[in-house]
Formats: sequence, structure tokens, C-alpha cells
Amino acid sequence: MPTQERAVVTRASIVQGAAVVFDERGYANASLDLIAEQANVTRGALYFHFKAKDALANAVIEEQHRISRSYAEHALTEARSALEGMIRMSAGLARQLTTEVVVSAGIRLTTDGTASELSAKDPYRDWMDTFVTLIGLAIEQGDFRDDVDPVRVAGFIIPAYTGVQLVSDTLHDRADLFERVSDLWSLLLPGLVRPERLADATALLTLVAP
Amino acid sequence: MPTQERAVVTRASIVQGAAVVFDERGYANASLDLIAEQANVTRGALYFHFKAKDALANAVIEEQHRISRSYAEHALTEARSALEGMIRMSAGLARQLTTEVVVSAGIRLTTDGTASELSAKDPYRDWMDTFVTLIGLAIEQGDFRDDVDPVRVAGFIIPAYTGVQLVSDTLHDRADLFERVSDLWSLLLPGLVRPERLADATALLTLVAP
Repeated sequence: MPTQERAVVTRASIVQGAAVVFDERGYANASLDLIAEQANVTRGALYFHFKAKDALANAVIEEQHRISRSYAEHALTEARSALEGMIRMSAGLARQLTTEVVVSAGIRLTTDGTASELSAKDPYRDWMDTFVTLIGLAIEQGDFRDDVDPVRVAGFIIPAYTGVQLVSDTLHDRADLFERVSDLWSLLLPGLVRPERLADATALLTLVAP
Repeated sequence: MPTQERAVVTRASIVQGAAVVFDERGYANASLDLIAEQANVTRGALYFHFKAKDALANAVIEEQHRISRSYAEHALTEARSALEGMIRMSAGLARQLTTEVVVSAGIRLTTDGTASELSAKDPYRDWMDTFVTLIGLAIEQGDFRDDVDPVRVAGFIIPAYTGVQLVSDTLHDRADLFERVSDLWSLLLPGLVRPERLADATALLTLVAP
């Protein structure tokens, strides 16, 4: 492989190894030595790409957000409405959280107490912006009532989802995550959806499954 | 002071000092030396009470939960209904989060990525149990609909509140916390409250203020 290509591969395996270590041990108990060992690279190779633990954690968060965004865009192309898109996105993230270590680690780092030094703000803002747009569309498409405020609703759904997955992780290692995400929607929909559309909207919750 | 009494005072000032350090720096970046300095005790005195950082963090979480529980019980005595009690409790915790360092630190430690080694599970379970009871009462008192499921609703409200305060902390240092807690209720109440009681229930949200 040419040198530059090899560097890209090495960097990717370091980020993957870092995700495994952060996911298992949390930010505080992860070390560069453990990550080098997990990624099967020398300490020197690791240092060439990342000078410190916070840079590695930020790379995991960025890679997680990139993966999650790309799934989300795919979910939207499959959806027949903005509401279906939002429900598919929430289910897709739950699937990634329970099957992909980079996503699990990235979200754990985002909600970590040491978040002040990590790039935790951007993903929240990015999801909120996306949901403001989709909620606006759901109003236009007649699923949501006209008096729904997209900014306030997005400003609740993203944090609520954050807490739901965090507490599911803390109490049950995410074993009940799909059930809890489905509850989030079934409790919120009556306040958002036009009464005549509520049955159809609730039927979409079968999409929230592994 | 008698020896035992002095030990109690010393322990309390260590927990207070630990809260200040954990709150400012997070679990990962706190050290026993910094905590001893902040608490104005010798390293030996600190070691007499706490052998390791996780024991100190657990003591802060326990003290936070004790303070928050005692406020919550007071909120309930002032409330004229179970629903008003839940709204007062959520506002009371927001007040403590923005004014009491032990509460802020305790909640930050509970949602910390290193939570696996800390006693983070018990507070969630304790709040959920309390809310299951209060939601049951709100149904009996005719505020909530008969088909509301107390376990599922409590299993959403506690995680949702957790996420709301966490994201408010991450994005805005909790400056918008009361507004976000009020949004939590105003978005959930339509799915829970009997239509003829919804206006009265929504009026209770004026209680969610600093």
C-alpha cells in the first residue's frame, strides 16, 4: 500500500481500537497504551496520529456521528413522511447503539462527565437542527398540529432520547432500549399529532424494533 | 468537640470539598490531593474517611440523593395533588441543580461515563418508584386518564428529565433548565391528563421557575 493509504488504514484501526477501550472502560479509565494494544499498533504509530486521549475521544465521537448521520440520511430516503423518518432515525440509532461499538462508545463519550473537554455539543445541535426541519415538514404534511413549535419539540426530543438511552444503558445495558424508545414516541405523539392521524402515527411504532 | 463529633464534621467538609472538585473537573480529572486541599484537611485525614476516589464520588451521590429526597418530600407536603407534587419536585430539583454544588456534582457523577463503578443505579430506581406511586395517585385523583400506565410513564419521565438536565448542562450550563423542564411537562401532559383537566394542569407549570 502507498504510505498515505496505509496511514489512513492505521488511523481507522486506531479509532476502532479506541472505541472498544472507551466503550468498555469509559474515558477516565482508558489509556493510550491500552488503545495501542487493542488497535494492534505501536505506541509510536498511535502518537503519530493522536497526541492525547482527548483527541482520540473526539475522533471516536466524530466517527460515530458520521456513521449515525449516514444511517439517518438512509432512513429518510426510505420514509414516506417526515414523521416516519424521525421514528426510523430513532430506531436506527438504537440499532447502532446495540450493535456498533463506535456508536456505543461515541454516545457514551458524549454524555460523559468529562464532556467539557470533548466535542459533545456539536452532535446535539446537529440532531436538533435536523429535527427542527423534520418537525416543520410533519406540520406541512398534516401529521403534526399547526400549533406545534418545532424548536421547542426538537429541543425536548433530542435530550429526552439522550436520557432514555443513558438510563437504559446504566440500568439494563440497553437490553430494554427499543421498548423505551417506543414509549418515548407513544407518550409524545398524542400532544403532537392531529387526532385523525393518531392511529396511523401510532402504527408506525412497529418500526421501533431490533 | 468530642472526637466522634469532630470526625462527623470532618467527613461532611470532605464530601462538600469533593463535590466542588467533581463538579468543576468531572470524575476523571479530580484527585484526592485536590479534594483534600479544597476541603482544607490533610491527606491523612481524608484517607481516614475515604480510601479511594470512587468511595468519595459515591458519598457525594448519596448526599445529593439524600438532599434531593428531602426537598422532594417537602414539595409533596405543599402540593394539593399528586400531579402538582410531581411538577413541584421537578422544579425543586432544577433549583437545587442550579444552586447547590453537592446536587450538581452528584447528578453529574450519576450520568458520568465512569458510572459503572459508581452507585448510579439506585437513585434512578428510587425516583422511578416514587413516580410510579404518584402517577397511580394522579389517576385516582382524576387528573390522569385511566389508561395511563404508571410504570411506563415513570420509566420515561425520569430518563427524559435526566437527559433534559444533561443536555441543558452541556449546551448552556443549565441557564435554560427551567424552560426545558417546563417544556417536558407541557409536551407530555396532553397524552396523560383528562381533556377537561388539561387547562388546570397546564396552569401548574408556572411553578416551574427559579
